[in-house]
Amino acid sequence: MKPLGSFMPFLRVFPILGAIVMVFALTMLVPLGVSLWTQDGASSAFPVAMALTFVCGALMRSAVWRVGHKLELQKRDGILLVGLAWTLLPLFACVPLLLYFGPTSTPLSFTDAYFEAMSGLTTTGATVLVGLDRLPGSINLWRCFLQWLGGMGILVLAVAILPMLGVGGSQLFRAEATGPMKDAKLTPRITETAKGLWTVYCLLSLACVLGYWLAGMSALDAWIHMFATLSLGGLSSHDSSFGYFQLPAAEWVAIVFMLLASCNFALYFVALVKRQPARIWRDAEWRGSMLLLVGSGLFIAGLLLVKGSLSDPVVAVRTALFNVVSIASTTGFSTVDYTTWPVFAPLFMLMLSGVATSAGSTGAGIKMARIVILVKQARREMARIVHPRAVNPVTMGGNVVDSSTIFSVLGFMLVYGGTIIGLTMVLLLTDMPFDTAFSAVVASVNNMGPGLNEVGPAGNFAGLSDFQTWVCALAMLLGRLEMLSFLVLFTPGFWRK
Amino acid sequence: MKPLGSFMPFLRVFPILGAIVMVFALTMLVPLGVSLWTQDGASSAFPVAMALTFVCGALMRSAVWRVGHKLELQKRDGILLVGLAWTLLPLFACVPLLLYFGPTSTPLSFTDAYFEAMSGLTTTGATVLVGLDRLPGSINLWRCFLQWLGGMGILVLAVAILPMLGVGGSQLFRAEATGPMKDAKLTPRITETAKGLWTVYCLLSLACVLGYWLAGMSALDAWIHMFATLSLGGLSSHDSSFGYFQLPAAEWVAIVFMLLASCNFALYFVALVKRQPARIWRDAEWRGSMLLLVGSGLFIAGLLLVKGSLSDPVVAVRTALFNVVSIASTTGFSTVDYTTWPVFAPLFMLMLSGVATSAGSTGAGIKMARIVILVKQARREMARIVHPRAVNPVTMGGNVVDSSTIFSVLGFMLVYGGTIIGLTMVLLLTDMPFDTAFSAVVASVNNMGPGLNEVGPAGNFAGLSDFQTWVCALAMLLGRLEMLSFLVLFTPGFWRK
Ligand SMILES: [K+]
Ligand SMILES: [K+]
Repeated sequence: MKPLGSFMPFLRVFPILGAIVMVFALTMLVPLGVSLWTQDGASSAFPVAMALTFVCGALMRSAVWRVGHKLELQKRDGILLVGLAWTLLPLFACVPLLLYFGPTSTPLSFTDAYFEAMSGLTTTGATVLVGLDRLPGSINLWRCFLQWLGGMGILVLAVAILPMLGVGGSQLFRAEATGPMKDAKLTPRITETAKGLWTVYCLLSLACVLGYWLAGMSALDAWIHMFATLSLGGLSSHDSSFGYFQLPAAEWVAIVFMLLASCNFALYFVALVKRQPARIWRDAEWRGSMLLLVGSGLFIAGLLLVKGSLSDPVVAVRTALFNVVSIASTTGFSTVDYTTWPVFAPLFMLMLSGVATSAGSTGAGIKMARIVILVKQARREMARIVHPRAVNPVTMGGNVVDSSTIFSVLGFMLVYGGTIIGLTMVLLLTDMPFDTAFSAVVASVNNMGPGLNEVGPAGNFAGLSDFQTWVCALAMLLGRLEMLSFLVLFTPGFWRK
Repeated sequence: MKPLGSFMPFLRVFPILGAIVMVFALTMLVPLGVSLWTQDGASSAFPVAMALTFVCGALMRSAVWRVGHKLELQKRDGILLVGLAWTLLPLFACVPLLLYFGPTSTPLSFTDAYFEAMSGLTTTGATVLVGLDRLPGSINLWRCFLQWLGGMGILVLAVAILPMLGVGGSQLFRAEATGPMKDAKLTPRITETAKGLWTVYCLLSLACVLGYWLAGMSALDAWIHMFATLSLGGLSSHDSSFGYFQLPAAEWVAIVFMLLASCNFALYFVALVKRQPARIWRDAEWRGSMLLLVGSGLFIAGLLLVKGSLSDPVVAVRTALFNVVSIASTTGFSTVDYTTWPVFAPLFMLMLSGVATSAGSTGAGIKMARIVILVKQARREMARIVHPRAVNPVTMGGNVVDSSTIFSVLGFMLVYGGTIIGLTMVLLLTDMPFDTAFSAVVASVNNMGPGLNEVGPAGNFAGLSDFQTWVCALAMLLGRLEMLSFLVLFTPGFWRK
């Protein structure tokens, strides 16, 4: 086995990767069914894409099977597997788009198709497509369904339904899950946890579809927008996003479910299993996210009233809550072009998108848990200047947060800040204006979606050059995998024995 | 003494503060002499201001003397003293400006005068004045002389020349000095160190004056611009800054001395005393600063040539080196409006201003030493993801950097980032455009000076509202005192026994 050298990790993960790709192929049955049912003219794209994906998965599984099936998954293989899966799945996910748009008058380039698929799976919800209202329902549904799959985690789904992952499952789970204290969330029976998370996710999804339908959406739009809501994705089947509907009731439904999806699903699962709903309220991170999201919404409502952008208080509260919660929760729906609001508002919302969602939610960014730890750590450093010898450990939920967790949170912050600055600089080198470049990177890294100016809620990412598009796609991937676990693949240390 | 409660720290520091104010009054002899010598019509402003300052200092010293003189300086009094000194001295420093401008057709508001004095003392070098070329030489000299005093530290000067500070000196020194490893720089004989630093500073200053004079500047301009160069301050006696001279030789002199002043003066002092010039080269931080400054200058020169902004390589190298080193070293001189360069360049330079100077230099920002520690710490965190149990300590100059230093560096980064975001948000609330607000805050916090747009090298801070001016003045102060040691004054813990 010696000559294979650093290919060994690949041999170990490929059979599993193949199984995941095969599962992913089966998810295309959903848009295929919709396409056949509604006769929307896109039904030929899905069977071909599905067959191609399934065969590729089967080949990956079988070709390496003979070498790989006896090799046990090692500790760091989870990182490699997640990195490979998140780079490969958009490749398969964009095939239906390429096939559908190919023969039309506006064929999609591979760059744009991959971007759209990556934007979907990472729940970013930025789009390079225009004329969404004229697209077949099944194509729009596929875009939003990708978000729903990526939101809770396609690999978590794999852990839940593929018994073969067994031991390796926990490595996988850890590498894909987000937030500072991943170990704490792992139960001994990882498969049970993954099943539980997906069950809660599905229950909330059904409630959301029902809400949208009762509020007056068509059945198809209710499903499509539920996918985009629960995953905090924010894609839509309409160019004017949620503004298309003009349904106040649907906006309230969206506000409620965006708030619910901004919090830790594991918390809901535990509260449900143990029948202790009070657990939710007692969770410091849950309170932090809720307070920040709702408080910011009301604050912006006040600002809009004071600055005269809106005059009716009821409209102001609903509009501000919807758009602020949407951006801050990294969803990215909009009912108005909020970049025309006083300049403070859109930038405040952009900033919130980095900090407001909880670990274990479907949102991205720094995560409220890290913010809580950082604030407590900063306060501790201040105290240390005055009393250098005082010992006051950082605690969270009554437990002491150990040094190595604090270090890894601070390390995350460094890489997060460095990624935003670095990728913004790369976009500036292509002569993109500063606020467009900065907001595009922040919106991508936070998996939020719309930025400012050209890439704002009234524009989209279609105007970007191919190179700029790839930079944003990379930003989304880094954001979804929380940088470190992806970047570490490019360090020599990872490949050393 | 009990009823005095939390006034006690004030009683302990006031006598020393009085002495510092009295020393500061005497520094006004310099512009007064110039004014009398050149008969520039501003000679009445200085004696009045000097007398006022001296009397205030004497009153502070004597009034509290009877209560305070027997109270020994406590550990945290240094922080309070430095905070008070840096808030009070601009108050006295702006008196000559108020007196001179009062009877003219363009009287200066108190806000603007305080801003100008704070900008000078913190070596920021942002200005609210226009028509600098028409101002009396002594007024321009005073603005730039303030930078020179603030650059090496007026309190370090006080430690050097006031024997009475004795024991308290080291508290004071620690609170005013910058960089992550303040303790390491303290010798047992703090007075000797302070004297040594000021000696090196004065020697380099004389060399710089000579250089400017030989390059063709008038004697007065040579002194004025030396003050602004060695302190990395960047104020000028000309509206078009260094562009006024059109003297390539003077630009090269400026480049050399800005580079020298970007590095640790304590390092020069030690190399001089021990007669080991190789020590300078062996210092990791010195190499980091030099490499980043010169490398960035050459990189931008290449960019300007490639993008066609400049065509002559010799001019491109000189122009890019001068402007990049000037901005990155937080000086803020300019020979051209570099904001018309490709958009990458000005933002890259703005970013460099936060990281390129060394601890113990006259520059501000994060400091190279912290960056080195952060990069090593980030690398360690990456390694830890792969090998969770590996122990690889962060080292610097062969010594292990202990956890508490790393924590305080990371704490600094948090407060630094939080300050920039927070103050930018405050400026956005006043409807200032995003890039102006962001760059004004970054330029102020880094004590750099010019930002972008209205506050860019072709504009100045005169167009800001009073409130915006105060926000920028606060940003400068926070930057100069490295945030934490100032902010800590506003925590209840500081005032608790
Ligand atoms: K999103
Ligand atoms: K400066």
